[in-house]
Formats: sequence, C-alpha cells, structure tokens
Amino acid sequence: MLKNEMTELLQIQYPIIQAPMAGGVTTSKLVAEVSNSGSLGMIGAGYMTPNQMREQIKEIKQLTSNPFGINLFVPDEYDVIEEEVKSVNEILNPIREQLDLPGKDSFEITNFNTAFETFIDQIGVVIEEKVPICSFTFGIPSKKVIAKLKKNNIILVGTATTVREAVENEKAGMDIVVVQGSEAGGHRGNFIDGYQESLVGLMSLIPQVVDNVNIPVISAGGIMDGRGLMASICLGAKGVQMGTAFLTCIESGAHKIHKEAILNATEDNTILTRSFSGKWARGIKNKFILEMQRHERFLPDFPVLNILTQDIRKASSDQNNLDFVSLWSGQSPRLAKSQTVESLIKNIIAEANKINLDIQRF
Amino acid sequence: MLKNEMTELLQIQYPIIQAPMAGGVTTSKLVAEVSNSGSLGMIGAGYMTPNQMREQIKEIKQLTSNPFGINLFVPDEYDVIEEEVKSVNEILNPIREQLDLPGKDSFEITNFNTAFETFIDQIGVVIEEKVPICSFTFGIPSKKVIAKLKKNNIILVGTATTVREAVENEKAGMDIVVVQGSEAGGHRGNFIDGYQESLVGLMSLIPQVVDNVNIPVISAGGIMDGRGLMASICLGAKGVQMGTAFLTCIESGAHKIHKEAILNATEDNTILTRSFSGKWARGIKNKFILEMQRHERFLPDFPVLNILTQDIRKASSDQNNLDFVSLWSGQSPRLAKSQTVESLIKNIIAEANKINLDIQRF
Repeated sequence: MLKNEMTELLQIQYPIIQAPMAGGVTTSKLVAEVSNSGSLGMIGAGYMTPNQMREQIKEIKQLTSNPFGINLFVPDEYDVIEEEVKSVNEILNPIREQLDLPGKDSFEITNFNTAFETFIDQIGVVIEEKVPICSFTFGIPSKKVIAKLKKNNIILVGTATTVREAVENEKAGMDIVVVQGSEAGGHRGNFIDGYQESLVGLMSLIPQVVDNVNIPVISAGGIMDGRGLMASICLGAKGVQMGTAFLTCIESGAHKIHKEAILNATEDNTILTRSFSGKWARGIKNKFILEMQRHERFLPDFPVLNILTQDIRKASSDQNNLDFVSLWSGQSPRLAKSQTVESLIKNIIAEANKINLDIQRF
Repeated sequence: MLKNEMTELLQIQYPIIQAPMAGGVTTSKLVAEVSNSGSLGMIGAGYMTPNQMREQIKEIKQLTSNPFGINLFVPDEYDVIEEEVKSVNEILNPIREQLDLPGKDSFEITNFNTAFETFIDQIGVVIEEKVPICSFTFGIPSKKVIAKLKKNNIILVGTATTVREAVENEKAGMDIVVVQGSEAGGHRGNFIDGYQESLVGLMSLIPQVVDNVNIPVISAGGIMDGRGLMASICLGAKGVQMGTAFLTCIESGAHKIHKEAILNATEDNTILTRSFSGKWARGIKNKFILEMQRHERFLPDFPVLNILTQDIRKASSDQNNLDFVSLWSGQSPRLAKSQTVESLIKNIIAEANKINLDIQRF
C-alpha cells in the first residue's frame, strides 16, 4: 500500500516526510516517533551548531533504527550595515521595553559572517554520523559539497518553489525535490524566483513541476491528512512533506502558545511577513507582524534581522506572550489536531485508503 | 463513471463546469460545445445587458439541448468621486496617447449607478428564458432575488474564497458553492474576507470548506486536466470549475493575443492587480500592470475603474497590443493547450480514469 520510488529510495513505509522545522520543534522524540511510525522524521538543524546536531543525531539513533533525515540552510552572502542595524534597533526598542528587555543600539559584528564555515562543519557532521538523508532549504549547495555527500551515499533532497527552481535542483544532482506551495507555513524556500513569483498554489505547482523534472517530487504546503496526501499523489507527487500537522503533535517541541494559536486559528488568519527574520515566511497574524508591516520593506535581510529579533522572540515565548513571537503555520490550521504522531499517521493512512475505495464507486 | 450528487443536481455527465468568464470569452459556441460534451457550459453575463443575455441564451438553445448556466455579478454600493476620476484620467491619459486614443478628463455620470436596476432585469431574463442554472460572483443576492429564482426551480451556485464565505452561501440557500483558490485567474470573488485573507491555496481551502458546509463544493483555480480533477475529488470537492483551460480552446472568444500570452507563459508569470477594474484579479504581467503598480492603492473601486479603463483595454486589444489589456490567467499556464473543447474534456476524463487505475497499484 502506497509504495513507490520515493518510499523505496528513502526506505520508508509511507510516503510522508515530517518537515524539518527549525527552532526547537523537531525534538528527538518527534523525529524518532515519525520514523518509528513508518514515515521519515527530519531534524530541522538550520540554526544548530555542529555539536548540537551531533548530540541530537546520537540521541535519535538510540530511539529508532529506522532512517531519518536532517535539513540544513544553504548560506547566502549578506551585508551587515551598522547604520541599518541601529535603525532597526530603534524600531525594536519600544517592543523590548514592553517585554522588560534592555534596549540595544549596537551589536557584536562577530555574531555574523560565520554562516559559511558553520555550514561546512554541519556537512561534516552529517557525513561522520552517516545520516542517511540530507535536505536543503534556501538554495542549492556547491558542487563540491554535493559531490562529497554523494560519495558518502547520502540521499539528497532539495527544496523548490517554482518549476525553474525544481529543474535547477535536478540539474545539481538532488535525488528528490520538495516543492513548496504558497500554502506552506514558515519560511519560503525560494532562491531564484522572487518571493511574489514563488507564491504558487500546489494545485497549479505540482503538475507543472512533475511535467518538467524526472526525480520524485514531494508536495509541501497545507497538507494535513489523507485527503492532502491522496490529492498530491493524483497531481503527480510521490509523497508529501507536512509541517503544521506535526507541529501540533504531542511530541513536537513547539511552545504551547504556538500550538494553541494554530489550534484556534482559521484559514484566513495566516499572513506572509519578513519582519521576524528578513526572509518571507507564513505565520499567524499577531501584534508584532501588524506593527512591523509599515517598516517591512526597509528591514535588513536574513540572517541579520533574525539575529536582531532573537531576544524579542525568546522573551515573548518565555513570558507566554503571543504578541511578539513567530507563530509559523500553513494555510490549513482548521485541520490541525493535538494528537500523538502515531495517531496522526494512522489517521492519514486510514483516510487515504478510504478515499482509494470511495473513488472506485464513481 | 464520475457521477455524484453534483452531476445529478446539474444533470450533466462529468463533474466539470466551464468557468463563466465575462467579457466575450464565453461565446455561444463555447458554451454549447461544453454542454454537448457532457460538462456544464456557462455564460459569463456579468457585463451584459439584459438584451444581450436574452439573445445569447436563445442562440445557445439552438446549439444544445443539454443544460447550461449563466453567471451574474452581484452589484455592490459604490461612490463616484469626480475628483478621483479626474486624477485617474491624468494617470491614464499618457497611456491613451500611446494607443492614439483621445485624452479624457471628465466622464458622464450617467455611465454609473445603473448596476442594481440592470441586475434585477438580468434576473428577469434568467427566469423568463428558464436558464436551469444561475451562478453568482462578488456576493450573495438578496433574499428576495433568491426566493424568486428558487420559486422558478433555478439551481443556484454561489462563489466563495474562504470557509466563512462558503458558509454564508449555504445559509443563503445556494445549492452548490464554487470555492475559488488563490491559484485562480481573473477576478477574486471575495465579498466578506479581504483580498489578502482570501488568497488561500486549494490544497488548504477545499478540505476546510468541505468540513464546514453540507452543500456540494466545486473546486476552482489552476485546474487544467485530469490530475486537478482527481486531486479536487480527493480533497472532498464534488467537481471542478475550470477557466484558463477553456479560455485557450478553439471555441473560446478570447482574443488571439490573450490566448497566445497564456500559451507562452510560465507559472511564475501571473500577478494580482487591481489596476484594470478596481477589483483584485490574477493575470499575466504586462506593461499596464507594472506601470500602474505604484498607483494601485489609490485607484477607485469596481466598477468605476473598470469603466474608466475600458477604452484602453479595447484599443490595446484591437491593435493586437499585449501591453495594456487584461490577460487573465490562473497559475497553471504551462498546462494550457490550443485544442477543441471536445478534446480537452476527452483528455481530462481519460487522464482521470488512468489515475483511478494507477492508484490501485499503490
């Protein structure tokens, strides 16, 4: 049931990947439980140090003998303009005050510019620890990095938001491409096309990508249940990657206020913002997003802004305050449930099987 | 094959509705051919006078004995502010000059404010001519109008872009609701939710609507082939409404340059604009859209702006000039083909049947 070249390549039972959500969501328990349930658990390692990665990989190996994967952010060039940082801090300081945080007007330059070195070290850990699957967001790694990973028999998964980006992933040697529709929560993965151009719904995007690449296509964005899985398969995808559906699971490390915000939201409550990190991302509307909207166009790029808002997001979260923390969510919050990973996957497969049978009666 | 409560209600063979594209696309030949092929042909009558409607209905009755439908725009209150019109004309006059059109600085007030009367007359024609199916866009008609149509056994189809709008359609007595995803080309049908909130992809939108209404849900936006039809059915829709796929058909009345623009476009070439009509709509990027972008927020509402840009759109079209005419398209232009309606529908059904069989092999 539901076997195909994607499940065979990844050696998993069901064509379901748990999206590698960065920032503490993908606990070892979540990743291991997903892999134990016959799907692919993924570590969202984008913000992790090599040591944190190694520790979590070892922990997961204790909890499952099934394959699991890891996701890394492909670093890009960026500028740190001291004047720009100062003016952002002027905007952020009144918010810091509301959270009883000290104001800031300068920053340590040394916080930045280590992204490329860190990435190479992260790749080293993936190889040393023999993580069987490695996926990438925000771009395609260099030929050298790809060759090194391939030499170590690591299966490579790219991310694309348009046909062109999917084709580039295939050309670069990715074994599988995750195609992110406009429905998706969290950061947009666009790296060639602009953010506006990249906002294509899955109903349009999947068949157009499938017609133009030969590697297996994974559908991502707003998929929460057996209906989304079967629809993706009909469109030509070989499987799905689901974020929000796993984020509200018992085993996920997302903050309680984040889970509750999703469980209480409706499909028209999410919005695209670049105010948290400098990269466009979809989350549930809150005070921070609305207050920052008028500054949005003038804020620095990722990862500069992400580092600058870090203290605010952390304090808001620590204070159980919804107002100033990123509440990433796809466009299907009405379908989110508080349940175990096991129950989520069981329900998806049962619903998919039911749809299979029902379609026969047409 | 592919029968359900929607096909039974509409008395059609296949769960496919040709979207009622206004502005000359839905020729009698297109509508009749769609109905003759076992799907539902629809007249896009939004901009028609009652007499034009009557004439086309009679013509179609000569060409098919199968059911067909008609779509009307539900009128809304609007203001005509003379100063606003003058300032728009100042923006539009340089474009008029490029098209050898005379400049304008005032307008005939009598062009406006007849929308409500026209609508009542249009409803009268639908009843007199016994058109079996009537659909609505841009809102829900008054209780009185709905009661009158129902008394005459006309099947009513509403349009929604969010769960809330779908629920309101059901409450008002609509028999079927067409749910328009963010992928859709042409005008957004949102009437309660704002334009931004209404941009939900079908993968997210359909299951959330299906869970909240009891009437049949029709999926609309970016659907071009058997894959989109089967995916929509998996998501819980009872059928699909397709616009762009019919627009490029041989029988469609769309201008040659419009058809060619779609046939040459890619998924990342469409954009949302309100510069043509005052209502947000998705079309292929061109000079007019890009030049008007900086004025977009200050332009008057529909239908005022639509009337003001009419001479420009017409002249651009007459001169085979792509630059200043609306090139409405959904997000799947790579899937558009120049073919007959018969061949389009045959291909959809053949592909849907193939998917049906393939899924069994999972």
